[in-house]
Amino acid sequence: MTERGVFISFEGVDGCGKSTQIKELRRRLRGFQDRILLTREPGGTVLGEDIRKVLQRTVDTREITAEAELLLFTASRAQLVLEVLEPALAGGKHVIADRFLDSTTIYQGVARGLDAATVKTINRFAVGTCLPDITFLIDIETSKSRQRMTSRGSDEPLDRIEKMPDAFFEQVRKGYLELAAAEPDRFVVIDGRRNIGEISEEIWTTLTDRFDGLLS
Amino acid sequence: MTERGVFISFEGVDGCGKSTQIKELRRRLRGFQDRILLTREPGGTVLGEDIRKVLQRTVDTREITAEAELLLFTASRAQLVLEVLEPALAGGKHVIADRFLDSTTIYQGVARGLDAATVKTINRFAVGTCLPDITFLIDIETSKSRQRMTSRGSDEPLDRIEKMPDAFFEQVRKGYLELAAAEPDRFVVIDGRRNIGEISEEIWTTLTDRFDGLLS
Repeated sequence: MTERGVFISFEGVDGCGKSTQIKELRRRLRGFQDRILLTREPGGTVLGEDIRKVLQRTVDTREITAEAELLLFTASRAQLVLEVLEPALAGGKHVIADRFLDSTTIYQGVARGLDAATVKTINRFAVGTCLPDITFLIDIETSKSRQRMTSRGSDEPLDRIEKMPDAFFEQVRKGYLELAAAEPDRFVVIDGRRNIGEISEEIWTTLTDRFDGLLS
Repeated sequence: MTERGVFISFEGVDGCGKSTQIKELRRRLRGFQDRILLTREPGGTVLGEDIRKVLQRTVDTREITAEAELLLFTASRAQLVLEVLEPALAGGKHVIADRFLDSTTIYQGVARGLDAATVKTINRFAVGTCLPDITFLIDIETSKSRQRMTSRGSDEPLDRIEKMPDAFFEQVRKGYLELAAAEPDRFVVIDGRRNIGEISEEIWTTLTDRFDGLLS
């Protein structure tokens, strides 16, 4: 029987260094390339990519209500879970998710003032039992994450999130830390102030310590 | 101060005579045309029409999961409520909805075996306090509704719902009657076996008896 793969998600405020750390992790796992599935949301399925386009058309113009936005993100995720993630994990693949349901809790829920219990119900409805085995929350001060965002260079224009005021990022950071405190078994909070190599080493050590099946 | 409009929804199994009765009601209200808003779902907003297209592309191919389908229908409705229905009702317009949240409870919930309490939570999340003031459930035996569907002529090919087995329609009918029993103040169950004129008269009498503001 194939051993179920490990489901790893990365979370954190924009500019926290998430993408860099995912790249580092993939580099360390390069010998197992065919056992790794990388996901981003919304997207990852035909339906999910359609939803992504719908969101892109409307989110930037602010024409979407908080409720509809949350429901669209979770619809895309529901499809991804059943069509892609569950079969992959069952087949022994490891999944690395650049954001998963916690991003919805924070960005579509907390940041838009929606009821936390209802958001949790909807989130769980969409993913069923397919929760990450481990979630790395890369924590970083707001001043630092903003600095990183703006220093990305002029190729990438600031998107809607990046244009939000400091108070928004403070709220996101606080929301994430509260989530992590509520689920200490799943979350690992990473101090994002250190250099890339140090952080990458901590993530790697945590993973190999905790999941015997990761490299077998 | 403008009196709030009346929110009327029509529900029932396909082929029950809903559309005909909505047409009849509009005829009776033709003197108040600029005070009537007719809705269908998914759709009715830019976002809703986008979601409609996404659903059309995927539902027919059965590539959509039950969870994603429900979340997309409710996303469209959430947007419709805040962008269109609430402002219309607040401005004194009457809304006539050809299906609303009860259709989701039945078609995306009961018929697909999803947990009733969760479906209710999501449905209520999407519409907030914007519930129909009255819901006409046109009840009809499965044999009769199927007969009406197939006799519509060859111009309209049978859609996915219409191709379902009898047991599906029985389940839908039973589900609707249970909903109506659970919310007797909102639901009015109409015996759909009678002729168009008799049914239309009963609906009209019920509305004018119950809502003083309908024609004022």
